[in-house]
Amino acid sequence: MAPDPGGSDSGSTARLLLSCPDQRGLVARVADFVWRIGGDIVHADQHTDEQAEVFFQRVEFRLAGIDLDRSQLEEQFALLASELKMTWRLRFSDDSQRVAVMVSRQGHCLYDLLARWSAGELPCEMAAVISNWPDHSEAARHFGLPYFELPVNDDDAGRQETAVLDVLDRHRVDVVILARYMRVLSPHFIDLYRNRIINIHHSFLPAFAGGKPYAQAHERGVKLIGATAHYATEALDEGPIIEQDVTRVTHRDSVADLARKGRDLETAVLARAVRAHLTDRVLLYGNKTVVFD
Amino acid sequence: MAPDPGGSDSGSTARLLLSCPDQRGLVARVADFVWRIGGDIVHADQHTDEQAEVFFQRVEFRLAGIDLDRSQLEEQFALLASELKMTWRLRFSDDSQRVAVMVSRQGHCLYDLLARWSAGELPCEMAAVISNWPDHSEAARHFGLPYFELPVNDDDAGRQETAVLDVLDRHRVDVVILARYMRVLSPHFIDLYRNRIINIHHSFLPAFAGGKPYAQAHERGVKLIGATAHYATEALDEGPIIEQDVTRVTHRDSVADLARKGRDLETAVLARAVRAHLTDRVLLYGNKTVVFD
Amino acid sequence: MAPDPGGSDSGSTARLLLSCPDQRGLVARVADFVWRIGGDIVHADQHTDEQAEVFFQRVEFRLAGIDLDRSQLEEQFALLASELKMTWRLRFSDDSQRVAVMVSRQGHCLYDLLARWSAGELPCEMAAVISNWPDHSEAARHFGLPYFELPVNDDDAGRQETAVLDVLDRHRVDVVILARYMRVLSPHFIDLYRNRIINIHHSFLPAFAGGKPYAQAHERGVKLIGATAHYATEALDEGPIIEQDVTRVTHRDSVADLARKGRDLETAVLARAVRAHLTDRVLLYGNKTVVFD
Amino acid sequence: MAPDPGGSDSGSTARLLLSCPDQRGLVARVADFVWRIGGDIVHADQHTDEQAEVFFQRVEFRLAGIDLDRSQLEEQFALLASELKMTWRLRFSDDSQRVAVMVSRQGHCLYDLLARWSAGELPCEMAAVISNWPDHSEAARHFGLPYFELPVNDDDAGRQETAVLDVLDRHRVDVVILARYMRVLSPHFIDLYRNRIINIHHSFLPAFAGGKPYAQAHERGVKLIGATAHYATEALDEGPIIEQDVTRVTHRDSVADLARKGRDLETAVLARAVRAHLTDRVLLYGNKTVVFD
Repeated sequence: MAPDPGGSDSGSTARLLLSCPDQRGLVARVADFVWRIGGDIVHADQHTDEQAEVFFQRVEFRLAGIDLDRSQLEEQFALLASELKMTWRLRFSDDSQRVAVMVSRQGHCLYDLLARWSAGELPCEMAAVISNWPDHSEAARHFGLPYFELPVNDDDAGRQETAVLDVLDRHRVDVVILARYMRVLSPHFIDLYRNRIINIHHSFLPAFAGGKPYAQAHERGVKLIGATAHYATEALDEGPIIEQDVTRVTHRDSVADLARKGRDLETAVLARAVRAHLTDRVLLYGNKTVVFD
Repeated sequence: MAPDPGGSDSGSTARLLLSCPDQRGLVARVADFVWRIGGDIVHADQHTDEQAEVFFQRVEFRLAGIDLDRSQLEEQFALLASELKMTWRLRFSDDSQRVAVMVSRQGHCLYDLLARWSAGELPCEMAAVISNWPDHSEAARHFGLPYFELPVNDDDAGRQETAVLDVLDRHRVDVVILARYMRVLSPHFIDLYRNRIINIHHSFLPAFAGGKPYAQAHERGVKLIGATAHYATEALDEGPIIEQDVTRVTHRDSVADLARKGRDLETAVLARAVRAHLTDRVLLYGNKTVVFD
Repeated sequence: MAPDPGGSDSGSTARLLLSCPDQRGLVARVADFVWRIGGDIVHADQHTDEQAEVFFQRVEFRLAGIDLDRSQLEEQFALLASELKMTWRLRFSDDSQRVAVMVSRQGHCLYDLLARWSAGELPCEMAAVISNWPDHSEAARHFGLPYFELPVNDDDAGRQETAVLDVLDRHRVDVVILARYMRVLSPHFIDLYRNRIINIHHSFLPAFAGGKPYAQAHERGVKLIGATAHYATEALDEGPIIEQDVTRVTHRDSVADLARKGRDLETAVLARAVRAHLTDRVLLYGNKTVVFD
Repeated sequence: MAPDPGGSDSGSTARLLLSCPDQRGLVARVADFVWRIGGDIVHADQHTDEQAEVFFQRVEFRLAGIDLDRSQLEEQFALLASELKMTWRLRFSDDSQRVAVMVSRQGHCLYDLLARWSAGELPCEMAAVISNWPDHSEAARHFGLPYFELPVNDDDAGRQETAVLDVLDRHRVDVVILARYMRVLSPHFIDLYRNRIINIHHSFLPAFAGGKPYAQAHERGVKLIGATAHYATEALDEGPIIEQDVTRVTHRDSVADLARKGRDLETAVLARAVRAHLTDRVLLYGNKTVVFD
């Protein structure tokens, strides 16, 4: 089968994310692999966890000049990866991931994501907006996206989740963003989209996990409030943290003021986390992340 | 008894901190009081907790021009305060508070406080440095301060605390700063210096309370670390928060790096909290603080 | 003429912004005025510029309970103000200012302002969106606002400005927001809306005044980029600063990255400045501002 | 000549900083070089300036396991470097640079640097403290450092500079830190220590270059003040920026308050820049820096 060099691939890159037991020469082995197949490294970053003796690397290289098609490229790297006991993932910059945004009533994170997507800041295909409320259908239509209103109450959570999963499946969704979606997902759901569900929590986790974090923050009298974007796991609010930020508050701020100031944090933190994920900069290990700049 | 206007008092101010049930006209009543006795308000700030219906105020006024001595001034205000059911405190800017710093092995907060004090940033008299280790005696001597080495082990904590209290008593200490003092104080100690013991905790409380917060932060994989200055209470790490701040960290930071970056946070946050306390800007209510700018 | 107490006014407040030569008793005089007419101060903040010997104050008081109508209130205060040589302004919280947003091609600040306005964060009436391009007409329509496309080239700037002024006049606009409007306004325009035109400049002024600040920042190799909201004056980029903020950048950031990161700064800084202006928290003196919290 | 593997070198690393015209395979060529001589890369970071088509890299590798002595290592790399037209520098982590701190009257940056050095945060040998005032001799003695008081007035600046250069020469100084040294150095001095003189300027450059930046900032009414660490060049305040930071100020801050808040910025920014320089993380190109994390 003929390779597909140049042409549409000329500006495209491959992004390799890997981790493996630390050993001498890893950087050289990977760089040599890219060199031999005709690639050109445009970014490379690595990190060694000295305690755990684990090596992490992100390598991005140009596809132009490589005389292999993409599946051949994967096959060849698999040989090296196997020898070096690597956990790895290879993605191509022009192979857009398909994203669904799930949201309840508060729309600020949804609107911010759609505006950034529309401005070209988020390299992905927006596939669907899903909500348990009707509130955001017009916004979705404005951006040309299908809107699925799937209401839920405590009795029929399972039935609704099945409907959500059906939408995700039919729209071939790769990444799910919980943009202030206020329902808990089942372990089954989490498992199907493991490490591909990004949630925004409106506190500086692990402080104020659970519901009503702004009320808790007000009660405790903290001088900063925060927001945390993390991968959703079965343990609520305990998944690997991708990004966090805080802003200053004072005794003058009521719970409503905290919520208002917090909205700006939530949108900014979630957008940065989503962008990091979509550009393949996040590597998971244990319950933590390595986020390459 | 003759008042003492002008002269040494010409630049001095009185600082009134008060709280009371909210009602109409409080600002006018207090301003009118100051005006009638011949004072001149140089700063005033107030806050109303709308939920609790409590009014808080800090008023600073010049003593020059007031034809009352200080005890008369207190007596007269007490009449108004009683009528309006105020909790209040009156302090004079030239009436320096006496401060003791308690420290264990890590000296960065101590040195920072002494350098700021020596540069005139902290309006107080430094009375003593107390440590359970000998490490900082030379630094204390450099700044002309008595140093009390009072070692402690788990068996004789009570005996050592008695010795500490004796030093505080003999040196007429008003404010105790725990500048990385790694021993827990007894409820008796806390009670004697209630709301006058400022502690620095090396995390963004309530996250990572307890010992080894940097190790906990590393384990959890947070993207920001913090420091919190608070009044010490019987419930460890749960006292009213005076000041907090955070700094960004990444996967590259080891626990040792977190500790290094954290030291800069700890010194800055503690210094700001101490300065706020010494300039009578902190008002306590419930387990929270109002910190006037 | 009968006053209009209670009813619709019960939650409304008056906001008094004043400055005058510093003298003893100003706080008491103003507080006493409010007390005598039956008002209740809910916020008061003041500042004294010790060098210039000028006193600044913002006082907000409840209208409920005041037995004067608003013009009587103004008249009575004018007497005190005259005696104390005050420059002052009195506005009522329920008397919404009418706002026009002017924008060129980049819509991020416009969209952010409209979203905040729609969420109730900006207490004003949105009167019109004016642009020299057609790009944002749909967005304006989405929010139910009239959109005026008034193209301009260097030859007919005067004619276009006349058309803009006509729109502002017909829509009784109080405040003009330049949300990345890339044309210079004439001194005549500035003068008509003096201290009521808020501009966002995409740099940390006074660094990188003029056009292309992100390119200049990249060229100079700064480690932080900023944004500045200020009142427009005849001297370009030199008006009184209302709000500023910065974000960290590195050598990895291209000019395009600086522009992308800068957009988030611009929206946040402009929104905070607009909110401060609309809630009557900004007092001008000389070429500076006092912004009360 | 026998190599010196293991032993004292076991934890030591070599740090290679290089730049060259961008071309395919650079990462692989360098990694392969390190691999072939028996080294192990522990950190590597690179950056490509796409516009200028220049490649920058920092590679740190373990010396343990390399069967070459250090001069052989340099010779061998020189061959590769010559072929690839590299500008490069190789330093060894155990080969401490010798540092002199120059200071005028304000000692906060000096004391902070000495405290960090003493705590092990700054990997260098402190060689001397030089001042045009006598103020800091005791502090220098406290840290066991020679103190050179070399007063200067406008008439004999040349004579004093000769004396300074003599001290630097006799103490074999590699790096000069201007820790609030308020005299301008001659082009001759700058040239002798080119790219090895780090200055702290008390503003967010390019805003408020020149003298009295805090007064200028107060006059302009900015809402943030900054500090900038940069390499000294012949053009005052225009050298390549290494690090910058800012802090928030308000109308309440007098020039003296700005100076007080600024001191904290200056110490933090200078310390970060010095640490980056000493750990060979700063690469110069044109008038800018690449600072690797």
